[in-house]
Amino acid sequence: MKNYPFPKKNNSSSSINKSRGMLFENELNKSNEFYLNINAAIIYKKPTPIRIVKVEYPSRSHAKITEAYYQTPSTTDYNGIYKGKYIDFEAKETKSLSFSYTHIFKHQIDHLINVKKHGGIAFVIIYFKKVNKIYIIDIDSFIKPYNLGKKSISIKDIDTLDAVEVKMGYAPLIDYLKAVDKLYFLNY
Amino acid sequence: MKNYPFPKKNNSSSSINKSRGMLFENELNKSNEFYLNINAAIIYKKPTPIRIVKVEYPSRSHAKITEAYYQTPSTTDYNGIYKGKYIDFEAKETKSLSFSYTHIFKHQIDHLINVKKHGGIAFVIIYFKKVNKIYIIDIDSFIKPYNLGKKSISIKDIDTLDAVEVKMGYAPLIDYLKAVDKLYFLNY
Repeated sequence: MKNYPFPKKNNSSSSINKSRGMLFENELNKSNEFYLNINAAIIYKKPTPIRIVKVEYPSRSHAKITEAYYQTPSTTDYNGIYKGKYIDFEAKETKSLSFSYTHIFKHQIDHLINVKKHGGIAFVIIYFKKVNKIYIIDIDSFIKPYNLGKKSISIKDIDTLDAVEVKMGYAPLIDYLKAVDKLYFLNY
Repeated sequence: MKNYPFPKKNNSSSSINKSRGMLFENELNKSNEFYLNINAAIIYKKPTPIRIVKVEYPSRSHAKITEAYYQTPSTTDYNGIYKGKYIDFEAKETKSLSFSYTHIFKHQIDHLINVKKHGGIAFVIIYFKKVNKIYIIDIDSFIKPYNLGKKSISIKDIDTLDAVEVKMGYAPLIDYLKAVDKLYFLNY
């Protein structure tokens, strides 16, 4: 994990181009709403951290932020509870047929590794736009190719990892908890 | 839980007057940093949600938010993992010797009740400034006086609830996980 290739700030999830293809994050949020409504899990996207510089008060009770900047999140996009377990993951999408490690922050990987050590479920969910496929990859497995000197995870090598494809459904569209069941609950 | 007295927007934690006394939230954040460093727990404060209206790009890679507003959080202030369990809580402070239910949102209480149903640890941590005392109160117990028609929780009635006083320490100052141990782990 040394010399991890830090992504540039504009690779962070907040600035990923979301105008093309399926709006991955929106659909994940809808899936989480669905899971909440059927009482299957309580999982939320964390708000994007914003550094606030200037606030005006046009009226006594009304605060208007007039200067602020996006910040790099300390942790990951999503966390919550599923089947009594703490669950934590980062969502990524790529136009390429491989996922480059430059697109995820080292501190996010460290956080996920730490979550797993504490007994939680920790993974990365990746949407490969080109082939319209989504996978969840367990965090320990996710970092293995990197530790072997690889710069990215190719979609054709995913079978060699602790990864499960997320089947697209109807409600929810991204039924990723089924993949979580396969990856974390069937072997328990 | 019907007719729950919704707080006004300016009762939300983001606008609580933090200029007097101990900066409760800051100290909680420091405690969490401490717990993270000694590898006891992974607990973070969620960023305050901000509704962004206008963004300018003074340079290509640099986004400056020029109009935005504070939003009411969907869930609670803090969550994470402790001793393998999902933990979730809301932090409140009051200048009074009783904590009024008007100072916490109904949807936050519902969220905490739901977390407990899913097998997580869920409580409210309250700082009574006047007497410099902090308590954690289990969410089911927290809502009991309300369901019996009370408008607030008086500090003198706290002994009747599933609540534990948080002793002030040195490192961390607010050693609330010791109280969590007493409330949730000794009876397991």
